Amino acid sequence: MSVLESLNWRYATKRMTGEKVPQDKVDAILEAARLAPTSSGLQPFNILSVSDRELLEKIKPIAMNQPQITEASHLLVFAAWDDITPEQIEKVFSNVVRERNLPADAMDAYKNFLTAHFGSLTKEQRHNIAVRQTYIAFGVAIVAAAEQKVDATPMEGFKPAELDELLGLREKGLRSVSLLALGYRDTANDWLHGLKKVRRPIEELVIEL
Amino acid sequence: MSVLESLNWRYATKRMTGEKVPQDKVDAILEAARLAPTSSGLQPFNILSVSDRELLEKIKPIAMNQPQITEASHLLVFAAWDDITPEQIEKVFSNVVRERNLPADAMDAYKNFLTAHFGSLTKEQRHNIAVRQTYIAFGVAIVAAAEQKVDATPMEGFKPAELDELLGLREKGLRSVSLLALGYRDTANDWLHGLKKVRRPIEELVIEL
Repeated sequence: MSVLESLNWRYATKRMTGEKVPQDKVDAILEAARLAPTSSGLQPFNILSVSDRELLEKIKPIAMNQPQITEASHLLVFAAWDDITPEQIEKVFSNVVRERNLPADAMDAYKNFLTAHFGSLTKEQRHNIAVRQTYIAFGVAIVAAAEQKVDATPMEGFKPAELDELLGLREKGLRSVSLLALGYRDTANDWLHGLKKVRRPIEELVIEL
Repeated sequence: MSVLESLNWRYATKRMTGEKVPQDKVDAILEAARLAPTSSGLQPFNILSVSDRELLEKIKPIAMNQPQITEASHLLVFAAWDDITPEQIEKVFSNVVRERNLPADAMDAYKNFLTAHFGSLTKEQRHNIAVRQTYIAFGVAIVAAAEQKVDATPMEGFKPAELDELLGLREKGLRSVSLLALGYRDTANDWLHGLKKVRRPIEELVIEL
């Protein structure tokens, strides 16, 4: 399927069948998220792939008891770094130098520029930059899931602080920002299935200059 | 190309040839962004598609003089709503009711819930929600461009306030958040072309629970 066909096929599935998504499809979705571009290649996020049924039952009430949480095969929790530190920047560029066989100091000027730039911001500003990058990967993962004919429900209706507490995210330097429930549409019970996809008209969305 | 092939083909092109991207390809990229899912279907952003050469020359110094700005065929400016107002929510749901031929009051309960919810937030919090949705569409557009074999450079290195001023965005209730330069890679002059794509390893990015 083309990207446009995939986007027209998908919808925000409200009810899922519980059928398991094969691991190779989950892996393809996660790999797409991994390949998503991010500012300076920082990839300042982690993705938690939750398939433990008991844990999903505990997440459900934190997410307004939406049935997809437990009817999904996997729940991907997109969690942004709560900060972007000099140590994290150092690690990213060490990896670039190693992977590209560059001289050890090849990235130093850019790394120092970035470290100084982030140092001039507040922790909350750095976190907000991390959140933006997380959403690029989130968008990419949504397209990748549709291409795999895996239904994926993007969800923001949950209590991040409670989910962070349940999953121990703050200790890991992470804050949950969005969920992607992966599974298969329950066409018999999903009220949204088959309803026309509605979007703002292109002439309202795009301004040509 | 599959999504994974597209993501492996693309890279953050630093130099472009200036060759024009056919309109049907630009349209496909914009349509993908239009079809991107957003929270409650609000699509709280606009995309400015800039191809006017004089305007691109004026944007270049606002974006650290990066050559892609003027070597691109089109520069897409992703601009989030600076606020999410009851009037905007009303308009979105009127459109849903009309497009789906629903009874006039079918969406009222949800619309009122949303309006109350957003009313309980600060304007900056509402803007931040709009920014997140904008980045979903940004991620989707990046995949769509690669599928079209159009190079697309995601850019955050610019001065948003100056760009908003130049394009008159604040008067339109918009704030620029990211740029996507569309064009074709100049393989002879782009230092990044051909270098290995580096990402964090999947086992460092994904936590299975």
